[in-house]
Amino acid sequence: MQSANKQIEVIRITENGSDNDLDWIAIEEPLEIRLEYGVTDQRSTQNVAVTMRTPGNDAELAAGFLFTEGILKSQEEIENVDYCFIACAENKNNVILVSLKPNAVPYLANADRNFYTTSSCGVCGKGSIAAIRTVSTFSSPENNLKISAELLYQLPDTLKSQQEVFKITGGLHASALFDLEGKILLVKEDVGRHNALDKLIGAALNNHLLPLNNSILLLSGRASFELVQKAAMAGIQIIASVGAPSSLAVELAEEFGITLAGFLRGNRFNIYTAPQRITVSSTTDNYQLHNE
Amino acid sequence: MQSANKQIEVIRITENGSDNDLDWIAIEEPLEIRLEYGVTDQRSTQNVAVTMRTPGNDAELAAGFLFTEGILKSQEEIENVDYCFIACAENKNNVILVSLKPNAVPYLANADRNFYTTSSCGVCGKGSIAAIRTVSTFSSPENNLKISAELLYQLPDTLKSQQEVFKITGGLHASALFDLEGKILLVKEDVGRHNALDKLIGAALNNHLLPLNNSILLLSGRASFELVQKAAMAGIQIIASVGAPSSLAVELAEEFGITLAGFLRGNRFNIYTAPQRITVSSTTDNYQLHNE
Repeated sequence: MQSANKQIEVIRITENGSDNDLDWIAIEEPLEIRLEYGVTDQRSTQNVAVTMRTPGNDAELAAGFLFTEGILKSQEEIENVDYCFIACAENKNNVILVSLKPNAVPYLANADRNFYTTSSCGVCGKGSIAAIRTVSTFSSPENNLKISAELLYQLPDTLKSQQEVFKITGGLHASALFDLEGKILLVKEDVGRHNALDKLIGAALNNHLLPLNNSILLLSGRASFELVQKAAMAGIQIIASVGAPSSLAVELAEEFGITLAGFLRGNRFNIYTAPQRITVSSTTDNYQLHNE
Repeated sequence: MQSANKQIEVIRITENGSDNDLDWIAIEEPLEIRLEYGVTDQRSTQNVAVTMRTPGNDAELAAGFLFTEGILKSQEEIENVDYCFIACAENKNNVILVSLKPNAVPYLANADRNFYTTSSCGVCGKGSIAAIRTVSTFSSPENNLKISAELLYQLPDTLKSQQEVFKITGGLHASALFDLEGKILLVKEDVGRHNALDKLIGAALNNHLLPLNNSILLLSGRASFELVQKAAMAGIQIIASVGAPSSLAVELAEEFGITLAGFLRGNRFNIYTAPQRITVSSTTDNYQLHNE
């Protein structure tokens, strides 16, 4: 069974200095849900959806997804739920097959409205990252960008002062773009965190500002794979999030040489990847992870 | 232009009593993104995605989405972005058309991995709600379920004590099911809030516990349309969320007669819909919204 969390090396920054330490992060990996159905000699298999999930309770996730999306009507329709073997370097349990009883008819019209459908390989973290590398327009970032920890400390307060709709509803995610002096350039809000970031990158695109390789992206919540993917597509080199990053967000940031900071709250944060862009207070030294 | 937020009637509950009041909530509405492309006399239109978003900056959202998903390579490919008129009772600006220049070729292989694709009507809140009514298995809930405000106050602490992975990573959403005495029945965690709820409903489904009409669902974050939809599919009648609800979450709860409480934190919360299931401290009276 895959674990739900793992330990990685981080640098913890506070006003009193920094510590290289180990930290636990939540695992995020794709799960492809496949459905097998039909009478005994005419069984069909269909890939219904791929969702980015934390491993664990995958059989429940698959059954629950098929039921809540209206594709299955009851538990009685399910004969068996099990992982499929797929040939994959990592050999993770990232494909699950829900086999229906011969008389069960799935309502697949509803499957059209689902997320991600992919071909069989690619359903592991490495495959997802490779797919993004293929379509990304901007080449690997350079490493000469530098910002100070003190500058990062200020960003969440600056963002809060600009979140107009959040202020009155308490119910919106935000993405904000800052220049290297900490001046806010763009703020977008949305009920969906991916939409807030798409709005921000779309605004930058329309104003011919891409690649955004001279700015800092601040996320009001957690850093998931999807958000780091969108940032990578826009050429962003520094991402700070108020919440925690997922495992696949960290792996993608690592692969693209993006500096990823998390838990940015009240003059402290953690650095997960590419720490060389963040400088130590009042010197030109920068932070380093032990494994570099 | 559609607004990003709206005012609705709520009941604010605290230890000192209750107040009927007006509160602002963030708007959530579907946006269908359509792409028009091809040489002048052979233009094609394709529905690429539907995303649940907060209205505002829709042209940026559409352009940003197409770019970050790798369907477009640059702003230069876009000729025009504008709302489409669709015949719809509400006549909202929920369909946007991105027209490409004649020589631009979208990379539509990537469009397969997107969310929701729907037929033209249904792309308004009312249509989305009607679609769920069609596929829902359980009939409208009865109204004789009763729980006290004091019982709700305890639920977030009970959940926190059970969130194993969150405790060490700070990075997971949770869904929890409680019985009417406040005893926790099921807890599921995931990087994706919809996955946490699918895992919970899938576990209940596998154990033949559906419909879940005698229990309380607690969401660790915000209540979006998607989460209330999944809860409605499982026959849940009482939902409490630690965060804010969206407009479409409230409308769906209203339509299905589900009691929706939000901002459940430290012995206070707001009731948005079906308040009759929540009783006033030490009496059998219950709360009422003025418009009932």
